[in-house]
Amino acid sequence: MKSYNELKSINEKIHNLSHLGAITSWDQQTMMPSGSNEARSKAMAEFTVLMHQLRTDPKISNLLHEASNEDLVESDKATLREMKRTYELSTVVPEDLVKAKSLAGSKCEHAWREQRANNDWKGFLDNFEEVLKLSREEASIRSENTGLTKYDSLVDLYEPGMNTEKLDSIFSDVKTWLPKLIEDIVEKQKSIKILNPKGPFSVEKQRELGLKVMAKLGFDFTKGRVDVSSHPFCGGVPEDIRMTTRYDESDFVQSLMGIVHETGHARYEQNLPKELLGLPSGTARSMGIHESQSLFFEMQIGRGRPFLESIHKDVTDAFGDIEEFEIDNLVKIYNRVEPGFIRVDADEVTYPAHVMLRYEIERDLINGSLEAKDIPEVWDEKMQSYLGIDTRGNFTQGAMQDIHWTDGSFGYFPSYTLGAMYAAQQYNSVQKLHPDINESISKGDYSQAFTWLKENIWQKGSLLLTDDLIESATGEALNPVFLKEHLISRYLI
Amino acid sequence: MKSYNELKSINEKIHNLSHLGAITSWDQQTMMPSGSNEARSKAMAEFTVLMHQLRTDPKISNLLHEASNEDLVESDKATLREMKRTYELSTVVPEDLVKAKSLAGSKCEHAWREQRANNDWKGFLDNFEEVLKLSREEASIRSENTGLTKYDSLVDLYEPGMNTEKLDSIFSDVKTWLPKLIEDIVEKQKSIKILNPKGPFSVEKQRELGLKVMAKLGFDFTKGRVDVSSHPFCGGVPEDIRMTTRYDESDFVQSLMGIVHETGHARYEQNLPKELLGLPSGTARSMGIHESQSLFFEMQIGRGRPFLESIHKDVTDAFGDIEEFEIDNLVKIYNRVEPGFIRVDADEVTYPAHVMLRYEIERDLINGSLEAKDIPEVWDEKMQSYLGIDTRGNFTQGAMQDIHWTDGSFGYFPSYTLGAMYAAQQYNSVQKLHPDINESISKGDYSQAFTWLKENIWQKGSLLLTDDLIESATGEALNPVFLKEHLISRYLI
Repeated sequence: MKSYNELKSINEKIHNLSHLGAITSWDQQTMMPSGSNEARSKAMAEFTVLMHQLRTDPKISNLLHEASNEDLVESDKATLREMKRTYELSTVVPEDLVKAKSLAGSKCEHAWREQRANNDWKGFLDNFEEVLKLSREEASIRSENTGLTKYDSLVDLYEPGMNTEKLDSIFSDVKTWLPKLIEDIVEKQKSIKILNPKGPFSVEKQRELGLKVMAKLGFDFTKGRVDVSSHPFCGGVPEDIRMTTRYDESDFVQSLMGIVHETGHARYEQNLPKELLGLPSGTARSMGIHESQSLFFEMQIGRGRPFLESIHKDVTDAFGDIEEFEIDNLVKIYNRVEPGFIRVDADEVTYPAHVMLRYEIERDLINGSLEAKDIPEVWDEKMQSYLGIDTRGNFTQGAMQDIHWTDGSFGYFPSYTLGAMYAAQQYNSVQKLHPDINESISKGDYSQAFTWLKENIWQKGSLLLTDDLIESATGEALNPVFLKEHLISRYLI
Repeated sequence: MKSYNELKSINEKIHNLSHLGAITSWDQQTMMPSGSNEARSKAMAEFTVLMHQLRTDPKISNLLHEASNEDLVESDKATLREMKRTYELSTVVPEDLVKAKSLAGSKCEHAWREQRANNDWKGFLDNFEEVLKLSREEASIRSENTGLTKYDSLVDLYEPGMNTEKLDSIFSDVKTWLPKLIEDIVEKQKSIKILNPKGPFSVEKQRELGLKVMAKLGFDFTKGRVDVSSHPFCGGVPEDIRMTTRYDESDFVQSLMGIVHETGHARYEQNLPKELLGLPSGTARSMGIHESQSLFFEMQIGRGRPFLESIHKDVTDAFGDIEEFEIDNLVKIYNRVEPGFIRVDADEVTYPAHVMLRYEIERDLINGSLEAKDIPEVWDEKMQSYLGIDTRGNFTQGAMQDIHWTDGSFGYFPSYTLGAMYAAQQYNSVQKLHPDINESISKGDYSQAFTWLKENIWQKGSLLLTDDLIESATGEALNPVFLKEHLISRYLI
C-alpha cells in the first residue's frame, strides 16, 4: 500500500491547501471591499494554477498505476477510483487555460454585479464572450479526451455519469406534463385568498429567526457560520461551513426558506465521513446530490405544512401573532405557485422550466450552435413558451440574473432539477419507512429524515457512483416520477 | 535583466499566494468558529510549508547571483538586496521546523484564548514550552548562519540591523530617566480632577464613530475594512487591509484610540509604492517603522489636544454633549498616566517599561538563561521594580496577556518602543517644517503630517535601510531624545 498511501498524503495536502482557497473565495463574496477585486482575482488565479499543478503532478500517474496493483479494501478502491477521476479531469486542461479562465471569470463575475443592477447587457457581453470562448476551448479539449460531446464533458464535471442523452430524455418527459400541471395549479390557486404579511421585517429579527431555524435543523455552529451575500451559497470546507443568505426588509419569507435550503447543503458537508476527509471519496457525491439535500430540506420538508407548524411559534415570536401568520395562511404563502422571472425565487413547480431553459441555452452555447449575443432572443422566446412571461429588454431579470455563467460554470444548471428529482425520490423512501413522519416533523422532531439522510447519503461521501448511491438508498435508479407525484400530491390533491 | 526579471515574477507569484494566507489568517482571528481551529491550523501549516518551499527554491540562488551582475537601476538594486535578504533568511530554516513551529504556534495561541480567561498558567505552559523549544531551535540555526547571537538573529527578522547591543544601550538610557519621569507625572496628575464618562456606550455607536474617524484619517474603505477581534491588529494585504478593534460598552475611549492606532498601520500599507507591490522593496520597512506609523497616529497626533478638538463634535454627536466630553476633560482622559497591568492599555509614558520587561525576558528565554516556568517570577519582580505593580498569581494580566509569544514571535517586542522613538523623531521633523501644524490639526486638516509621511516613509517602502530611511527623513539616525522631549513637553510642561 506504499503507493496508495503516498497518494493519500498528496490528497491530504491538496485538501489542506484548498481550505485557504475556499475561505478566501467565501471572503470575496461576503467581506471583500470592491476595490480589492483586481488584486484578489490575481491571487485566486495564481492559487488556481498552483492547485492545478499539485493535482497534475506527473508522479501521480505512476502512483495511480502502482496503487491499482496493491491490495486495497473496498473503500480504498473507491477512493482510488475517485483519485483517478480527479487526476484525469485535471491533467486534460493546460495550465494557461486554467489561469486565463480563472482571470476572465473573476473579471466577468465582478463586473456583472454592477452591470446586472444597471441592466447593462452590452457591457456584460464584452466580458462574457471571453468567458464563453475559454469555456468552449476547455470543452473541446475535454471532449477530445473523454469521447463525450463538448457539453457532456462539462456536465460530467458536476454530475459524473450524466449526459445530454439522459437529460434530453428526462426533460422531454417533463415537458409532457409540466406546462399543464402549472396551468392547473395556477387555476386552482386563483380561488385561494392569501394574506400577504407587510413589513418592514428588521434584518436583526430575520437573522435571529434564521439562526433559530438553523439550530433546529441541526447546523453545527461550532464548525460554521452564516453571513450575507448577494447570491446565497454554501461554501467553506466541511470543517468550517460558510453559509450565506440575503435579507429583504419587505419580505422575510424567501430569506427564511433560503436559510432552510442552504442548511441542507451545510448538513451534507458537515456530515461527510470524517475518516475520509481530505480524500476525494470523502467529498459530496455530485452537484445533483448536493442540490438534492438542499431541496430535501427546502421542498420536501421546509415548505410542507408539518414543518411550518413546527416553526410557527418562532415566526410569531419574531414578527407578532397576527392574522397573516396563522398557520393556514403561512402554508398558503409557502406553497404559492406563480410563474416569475427569477429562478432562485421560483416555486418548485415552475423551477424545472427555468432549468430547462438554461440547460438548452448552455448546451447550444457550448456545442457552438448558439452565440452569446443571441442569448436574449432565445431567452425571451423560451420564457414566453415555458412560463408565458415577457422578458424583452429586461436583462436584469433575464439572462443576467444568475452568477453561474459569469465564471464559466456551464453544465451546472441541470443539477438543480436532478436534485429536485433525487430529493423527491429520497423523501418517498423515508415516508415508506416512517409513515408517521408528518406527525413527528410537526412536533419539531426531524430525526427520522436526518437519520436516514445521514446513513444513506451523507456518510457515503463519494464511495458509491451516483446511480449506485441512489439505488442503494431508495431501491431504484433515478426516477422522475417521484417529483411529478410529489408536485401533484402537494398542489392538486 | 533576464535573471532579475525572473526573480521579479517569482516574487509576484509569492505575493499573490501570500494574499490567501493573509486573508485566511485574518479570518481565523475574526470570523472562524472555534471548532474549526484544528483543520485551519493544519491548513495554515501546509500553506506555511508551501510558501517556505517557494521562497527557498534552489534556482533562486543562481538567479540572485546572475542578477547581481546585471545592469540595474538604483531601485532594482534595492529590490535585489531585499530579495537576497528574504532568500537567505528563509533558506536557513529547515521545512520540518517551519511546519512544526506553525502547528505548535496555532495550537498554543488557540488554547491561550481560553486559558488566559481562566488564568490557567499551567495549561498554557504545556503548549508554550513546545513553542519555546522550537523557537530556540530556530534561533540556534539562524545564529550559526548569521553570526548574530541567538536572540539577535530573531530581532533581525522584525527589525533588520537592530541588535542587543543597541537595544541595551537604548534601554539603559531610558532607565536613567523613565522611572523618575513616571513618578513626577503621576505626582503632577494627582491634583488633576478627571470626570469619567459613564457608559453604556453601544457597540453600534462606537462603530459609527470609529468609521467616521477612520475616514477623517484617510483610510481607504474601497480597499479595506474594520472588524472585531480579541487582540486588535492590522492585517490583510496592501490591496485589502483588514483592521480590527474591540469594543467595551463601558468605555469607548480605548476603542476609539485603538482605531486611530491601527489606522496608522493601515495607511502605511495602503500607501506603499504601487509600482513595487509584489516585490520585497515594496513592503513596509520594518516592524519598528510600522509601529512608528501607528504611534505617530495615536501618540503624536491622536492624543494631542489639537486632534481631540478636531473630533470633539463627532464624540458629542455620538454620545451626547455632556460635561464629561468637554474638551478639557477629554484631553485629560486621553493623557492620563497611570502604571497598569496591561501593555496594550498602557499610556505612552509607562509603555516603554512594559516593553523593557518583555525584551529582557524574551532575550533571556531565547539565549537560554531563563526557562518558561520561571517567567512569572521574573515578571512579578520586574513589574514591581519598573511600575510598582503586584502581579503575583495574576497570569491573565501578567505573562499571559499578550499574543506574541504564543506563536513564537520572539524578538518583536522591542519594535514597539523603537516605533515610539521613530514616531517622536518624525513628528519633530514635521513640526519644524510646519510650525502651524497644531492649528491645522485642530481644524481637522491633517494633511501636513500625512503628506510628509507619504513622501518620507510610506512611499519609500523598503528601498532604504532603516537607518538611511530615518536619516533621509529626519536628518539624523535614531535618537531617543525626541521621545523623552515629547513626553516631558506633553506631560510636565
